[in-house]
Amino acid sequence: MKYSKLFPKTLKQAPSGAESINQQLLVRAGFIHQEMAGVYTYLPMGWKVLDKISDIVREEMDKIEGQELVMPALHPADLWKKTGRFTSVDVLFKLKGAGGADLVLGPTHEEIIYPLVAEYVSSYRDLPVYLYQIQVKFRNEPRAKAGLLRGREFLMKDLYSFHTSDDDRNSYYKKVREAYLRIFKRIGLKALETKASGGTFSDLSEEFQVITPSGEDTIFVCLKCGSVFNKEILSDKKCSDCGGSLKQEKAIEVGNIFPLKRSFAETFKLYFTNQSGQQEIVSAGCYGLGISRAMGAIVEVSHDNKGIIWSEAVAPYRVHLVGLDLGDPHVESEAEKLYKLFLVENVEVLFDDRVNVSAGAKFADADLIGIPYRVVISKKTCLTSSRNSGNKLEIKKRSEKETKFLSFEKVLKIVKDSG
Amino acid sequence: MKYSKLFPKTLKQAPSGAESINQQLLVRAGFIHQEMAGVYTYLPMGWKVLDKISDIVREEMDKIEGQELVMPALHPADLWKKTGRFTSVDVLFKLKGAGGADLVLGPTHEEIIYPLVAEYVSSYRDLPVYLYQIQVKFRNEPRAKAGLLRGREFLMKDLYSFHTSDDDRNSYYKKVREAYLRIFKRIGLKALETKASGGTFSDLSEEFQVITPSGEDTIFVCLKCGSVFNKEILSDKKCSDCGGSLKQEKAIEVGNIFPLKRSFAETFKLYFTNQSGQQEIVSAGCYGLGISRAMGAIVEVSHDNKGIIWSEAVAPYRVHLVGLDLGDPHVESEAEKLYKLFLVENVEVLFDDRVNVSAGAKFADADLIGIPYRVVISKKTCLTSSRNSGNKLEIKKRSEKETKFLSFEKVLKIVKDSG
Repeated sequence: MKYSKLFPKTLKQAPSGAESINQQLLVRAGFIHQEMAGVYTYLPMGWKVLDKISDIVREEMDKIEGQELVMPALHPADLWKKTGRFTSVDVLFKLKGAGGADLVLGPTHEEIIYPLVAEYVSSYRDLPVYLYQIQVKFRNEPRAKAGLLRGREFLMKDLYSFHTSDDDRNSYYKKVREAYLRIFKRIGLKALETKASGGTFSDLSEEFQVITPSGEDTIFVCLKCGSVFNKEILSDKKCSDCGGSLKQEKAIEVGNIFPLKRSFAETFKLYFTNQSGQQEIVSAGCYGLGISRAMGAIVEVSHDNKGIIWSEAVAPYRVHLVGLDLGDPHVESEAEKLYKLFLVENVEVLFDDRVNVSAGAKFADADLIGIPYRVVISKKTCLTSSRNSGNKLEIKKRSEKETKFLSFEKVLKIVKDSG
Repeated sequence: MKYSKLFPKTLKQAPSGAESINQQLLVRAGFIHQEMAGVYTYLPMGWKVLDKISDIVREEMDKIEGQELVMPALHPADLWKKTGRFTSVDVLFKLKGAGGADLVLGPTHEEIIYPLVAEYVSSYRDLPVYLYQIQVKFRNEPRAKAGLLRGREFLMKDLYSFHTSDDDRNSYYKKVREAYLRIFKRIGLKALETKASGGTFSDLSEEFQVITPSGEDTIFVCLKCGSVFNKEILSDKKCSDCGGSLKQEKAIEVGNIFPLKRSFAETFKLYFTNQSGQQEIVSAGCYGLGISRAMGAIVEVSHDNKGIIWSEAVAPYRVHLVGLDLGDPHVESEAEKLYKLFLVENVEVLFDDRVNVSAGAKFADADLIGIPYRVVISKKTCLTSSRNSGNKLEIKKRSEKETKFLSFEKVLKIVKDSG
């Protein structure tokens, strides 16, 4: 993509009212645009990042046999009245449909998926079932000022699993936990498994928390054994695993996994016939992962005073090709050739092809946007028409200070290997 | 995917109240589940179809330099009040946000994209811009009984283009029209370019209509020159291109493209500075394509009394592998091997691995689901452990009657070539 065509360009200043770092940087760098508090447009580069996170999540869900579906945002309120959550969930958006029917915008989908599964599952042969979606959720947050960390409309992955027994559910729960650890590692987030309050199954309820001063959650990390606890489940401030002392941290919850209460299955009559012909209740688990929140969390933990530093797996492009001295027709034509060489090699590249912009402004934009590799072509580093000419390009990693001068072939090897 | 694991299984009967063919077949075959009138869950196979349609649309939008973004469903009502559409659009879902603010669920996105583009575009150098999204839309339809043809919540692609002049917009409009023709051809829909009322630019406003008795639109096709007209723009019932006589047809509108009125740019102050330093108004076009409606339309025009007949590009799987006599351990092991051979060859395959189900029931399910190629392995057609054994498999195209007996290599060639 040529920067001259990219929509939109970077902004010199963060908009007024942007309090959080992720909002400031993502808005300035042209990844998101705020439509109202907690509601954003994902601009082309922002959507690319979300799409890459989603694809990684999808791959890991498919590995544990999850089947992807998509449930609607509009829910009949009757289902929420049945579970009592029409009144107990205070952030529910409520509206009226044609004919005056009460509707709800889904902040989660138990009220939809239980009746759905109950309609198709009747025998032990129909179980287990693992269903997930990557879909837009709605929460009428009174306060939504933390950029992508607390939205009124946000992208989430929610997986639901249904089983013939708690044992089977618990063993699947462990697979999901492993999948989550793989996902967070792949997208570049150091997420800590944190014991959380899970109602009746407190040994199987975990949050995935990313430590950062901007986090809204408080967690405690044991300095001795490394166990991590959400403050809700600590009665005194000692590690309940080893008795060690705890360090308090602020953190962002990017995922949570927990068994679902039996009351959902009871309410929606989700029973199955076991091998002996008897009716039993279905066990279930719920596994959430905030896709857009994870994007915000990455920016919170991975930036410097110049801008964002994307991890390679989720960066919108792999190479930010900066063309300097493009007023010189020779340099311009060589830069154009280099851009096409990257494309031929299937390297995702953003080419800053602007002519009347200073080197300083171009470097500042590259640092702000945060693409992993910056490659500079200029009079000084200009290739002479052949990829094997021996001329050197300037390459720098966004996360490092060092600049190297290397041939195109070596540059290519570096940017490709790192994937 | 093994059918024994697929969620959900087919249903013997269409649910009561399903009036349209697409709803009856898609629900019975396990592609969609109705949550309320006009609101559906896309079940795993249904989501695969939508995803394939979306990917084709995306490819064609990218070819004409469209940049993908995603705008939110929640809109501040103020923007809709500015254009007057808060009261003039009768199918608008309205709701209250935190603090009592009026909100709207977007049925289209002019009210969001104009202010967005106005914020970033100020010079002729910033134009043209082509932005599209594949995103969920909401319409509070009083009547929503036609399955995926008229939904309250539905998936749509909307592209918006912004230009320095009407001429530039008109030439892009023609590129979009070509892209639409490619899309409909690729997904297997015979969509007719239909002249429609487009306000001030009636020569540049077209709908893409698929003729079928279940269509809600009425169009007229000229028997002499082939021109197609929406009934709205015909004063008498003669072809306005050649004077020929017209045939009336029912049709489904799967896309529409039209220039946008200047009043949007005026309302949202979308001006640019031209090369002479003067302010001019931005020209724009809007190009819609109903993704979920296209899925419904495909079923309406491509089915028989046994079930759906998917076009190859959008089918959830390419091969429906039916295993018969699976109680026989030899056949079972050969069927399992064959399934894996298809997977190794990257052929998307649904394997009916059920043991205690009759051949008749399996064939009926295959016909209902509508995957392009049915391959049968049974005692009679069983491979003997090698892919080159010379034994023959039974293969049949869903759209044809003829059954052939061919080696695995020949079967593979057929199902791969067809892509």
